[in-house]
Amino acid sequence: MKKILVVGSGRSASSLLKYLKDGAEENKWLITIMDQNQDLLDPAILESNNVTFAVSDINNVEKRRELIKGSDIVISMLPARMHPIVAKDCILFRKNMVTASYVSDEMRSLQEDAKAVGVILMNEMGVDPGIDHMSAMRVIDAIQSNGGKMIGFESFTGGLVAPESDNNPWHYKFTWNPRNVVIAGQGSTVKFIQEGTYKYIPYHKLFRRTEIVEIDGYGRFEGYANRDSLKYRSLYGLDDVKTIYRGTFRRPGFCRAWNVFVQLGATDDSYVLEGSEHMTHRDFINSFLAFNPNDSVELKLMHYLHIDQDSDLMEKLEWLGIFSNEKVGLKDATPAQILQKICEKKWSLDPEDKDMIVMWHKFDFERDGKKEHKESSMVVIGDDQRYTAMAKTVGLPVAIGAKMILNGKIKTPGVHIPVSSEIYTPVLDELEAFGIRFIEK
Amino acid sequence: MKKILVVGSGRSASSLLKYLKDGAEENKWLITIMDQNQDLLDPAILESNNVTFAVSDINNVEKRRELIKGSDIVISMLPARMHPIVAKDCILFRKNMVTASYVSDEMRSLQEDAKAVGVILMNEMGVDPGIDHMSAMRVIDAIQSNGGKMIGFESFTGGLVAPESDNNPWHYKFTWNPRNVVIAGQGSTVKFIQEGTYKYIPYHKLFRRTEIVEIDGYGRFEGYANRDSLKYRSLYGLDDVKTIYRGTFRRPGFCRAWNVFVQLGATDDSYVLEGSEHMTHRDFINSFLAFNPNDSVELKLMHYLHIDQDSDLMEKLEWLGIFSNEKVGLKDATPAQILQKICEKKWSLDPEDKDMIVMWHKFDFERDGKKEHKESSMVVIGDDQRYTAMAKTVGLPVAIGAKMILNGKIKTPGVHIPVSSEIYTPVLDELEAFGIRFIEK
Repeated sequence: MKKILVVGSGRSASSLLKYLKDGAEENKWLITIMDQNQDLLDPAILESNNVTFAVSDINNVEKRRELIKGSDIVISMLPARMHPIVAKDCILFRKNMVTASYVSDEMRSLQEDAKAVGVILMNEMGVDPGIDHMSAMRVIDAIQSNGGKMIGFESFTGGLVAPESDNNPWHYKFTWNPRNVVIAGQGSTVKFIQEGTYKYIPYHKLFRRTEIVEIDGYGRFEGYANRDSLKYRSLYGLDDVKTIYRGTFRRPGFCRAWNVFVQLGATDDSYVLEGSEHMTHRDFINSFLAFNPNDSVELKLMHYLHIDQDSDLMEKLEWLGIFSNEKVGLKDATPAQILQKICEKKWSLDPEDKDMIVMWHKFDFERDGKKEHKESSMVVIGDDQRYTAMAKTVGLPVAIGAKMILNGKIKTPGVHIPVSSEIYTPVLDELEAFGIRFIEK
Repeated sequence: MKKILVVGSGRSASSLLKYLKDGAEENKWLITIMDQNQDLLDPAILESNNVTFAVSDINNVEKRRELIKGSDIVISMLPARMHPIVAKDCILFRKNMVTASYVSDEMRSLQEDAKAVGVILMNEMGVDPGIDHMSAMRVIDAIQSNGGKMIGFESFTGGLVAPESDNNPWHYKFTWNPRNVVIAGQGSTVKFIQEGTYKYIPYHKLFRRTEIVEIDGYGRFEGYANRDSLKYRSLYGLDDVKTIYRGTFRRPGFCRAWNVFVQLGATDDSYVLEGSEHMTHRDFINSFLAFNPNDSVELKLMHYLHIDQDSDLMEKLEWLGIFSNEKVGLKDATPAQILQKICEKKWSLDPEDKDMIVMWHKFDFERDGKKEHKESSMVVIGDDQRYTAMAKTVGLPVAIGAKMILNGKIKTPGVHIPVSSEIYTPVLDELEAFGIRFIEK
């Protein structure tokens, strides 16, 4: 029997755990799930004789090490900042490890140790990062082996509400960590390269520099830039391409409306608003507008940001309840925390709602002196509120990656991300069986 | 003889040193100036038998301590971050000290030590901070002792070019540290209180939320908010006022034009532009605009930021040379550093140019149930490029403060700023002899 330890059983782990449980008999897996509680776990998972649950905090060193020592592979579904704790123990006890998170500087610093003791630390095996790397590299490698020379690459991913559950003027609901949506784009200037020219977008202009993409059968999406496009040049072996641009999808109109909050300063997470516990939604918006005892908050906002009263934008803002006299209900809160609270009141999924993950790549290349381009897209709809599109696309590649390591298909020790064909080919092939497939155009 | 040690003989020390030299005979002062070199020192200062120059770096501990130990009072005209080095030695050797800088956290932490050994650490004795505190507190104390109750306080200060030297469409030249002008307003959200309501302005809106003030004989000024208005409530004993707002003066139209750079992201100091050594002014501006091989940088900018071709704003931008094909000439530079370099080519003072310091306060108060208000303003014009308005308004209060400590007029040990009448009355009175006077309205 092979022993798999899964650390963390939160929302993103559901499809991963189901995959492991369903394959346990055939593959002779014994699965141990470690978490502080079973609150977010599907009870059906524990009905298998091959699955056990260990109640423990990640900071309980003794228990954690006992479980890691007794396993053959460790999957960490903890928040990204906690992976290095697990990874260091994995090096100590010579265990391989898989995560769905970006390689942090701390994780990268474990490279030499991992190599020295023959341990695989496989990261970025989720959806974004994860499926984005694998699906892009599959097409890039194919273009290059057919004599093509890559000249440009664009890629967008979005976590959205499924079309059948899309019933609000923003065409958006929170399907993942709301905090990350509210503070998206902050922290550093967006950098990318277009036709060989470096381009920079400051945060306060990010949501006005968007691009529209149409995906057959799913309509139009609006993309805004991610912060870190440049580093993908070396990651994907595209050091000579003239355009590289990565971004996030929303439905058209979202960014223009979200920009209102950016312009107000309402997404700022760096200071606490005085007296936030007494604030209404309306007070919150008013705190960013000039003082005037006679004008309404609505009029001041429309005038300040040049918004027409009869615009779609104003409809979105009113629908979201930002002008209401309802109490926010948060003490010592930052603007970002208050805005998140207001949005959560309206953008939460209803019990029957489904989510959707959309990914789209565009490849520009030259072959035989001719310019060509190719598009590749994936749309995944969630089954329900547990087996969401997000949980499937994050968890299944992690699970498949872990299986490949257990079966000896991935062997090279060190800190990795899935950009080589020995990894992406079997993973993408198997994902198709779960309805996670790319359509090329 | 009383021994005065002045550490630092840069631009801001000229009027201070002249005051000390001119008063040396009468007051029996021996003045030692310590600096790495005499580059910025008026040679006439050293013609006095009461003045000597000691060549030393502040980081030469032995030399520094020898000089401090041998003095009766120490004046630090070093950059603000270096004051604590001097202050700690002053505590060690029981010497009083004066600076023109804000009390830093590190300086504040010396409070108990200074009190324990009976040392005065007098800070914020320059113009802003300095004369602003003194002139505001004189009026506030007078209002309150006449039975008035303060309800609002606004204050603006600006370092500008004198009207007779104002010959460009921005009505601005660098009269002080250009870097501080370029990055002004960054780092944290502006906070103030207006009619009892907290108001917040994010950096990218700061230069559009301005206020116009007219000062008799000098025309109109435009003020934008400083970051830190709220802390002045406790500093000035105004905890109950409903409005408190502090800001910086420019000439009307400056802020709207400067806002173009803020909107572009050209004032960002947090990252380095790739290949800045090859960049022209025009490339720099273009790096913040969308890629389009057919449109001009001018048109893209005008369209992006809604600027009319025939506007004053466009005239300002063209005059500044931002569209020129001249090389910037900086390697590994941040946007802010490049923008500073471009501005310095146009905004430098000509040899005959004079600078100007403008300060304006507005006091709202109630007396006998009636609302009243009072304005107080000061305008100082520089003599020449050495004895600038900035050097006079920064250096003279420092010098007068040092004299008062030497004469025993200021006695209380500890970390201080000049907000009490025993300090501000004699200082403001003596400043009038130097043409630094306030006009009340």
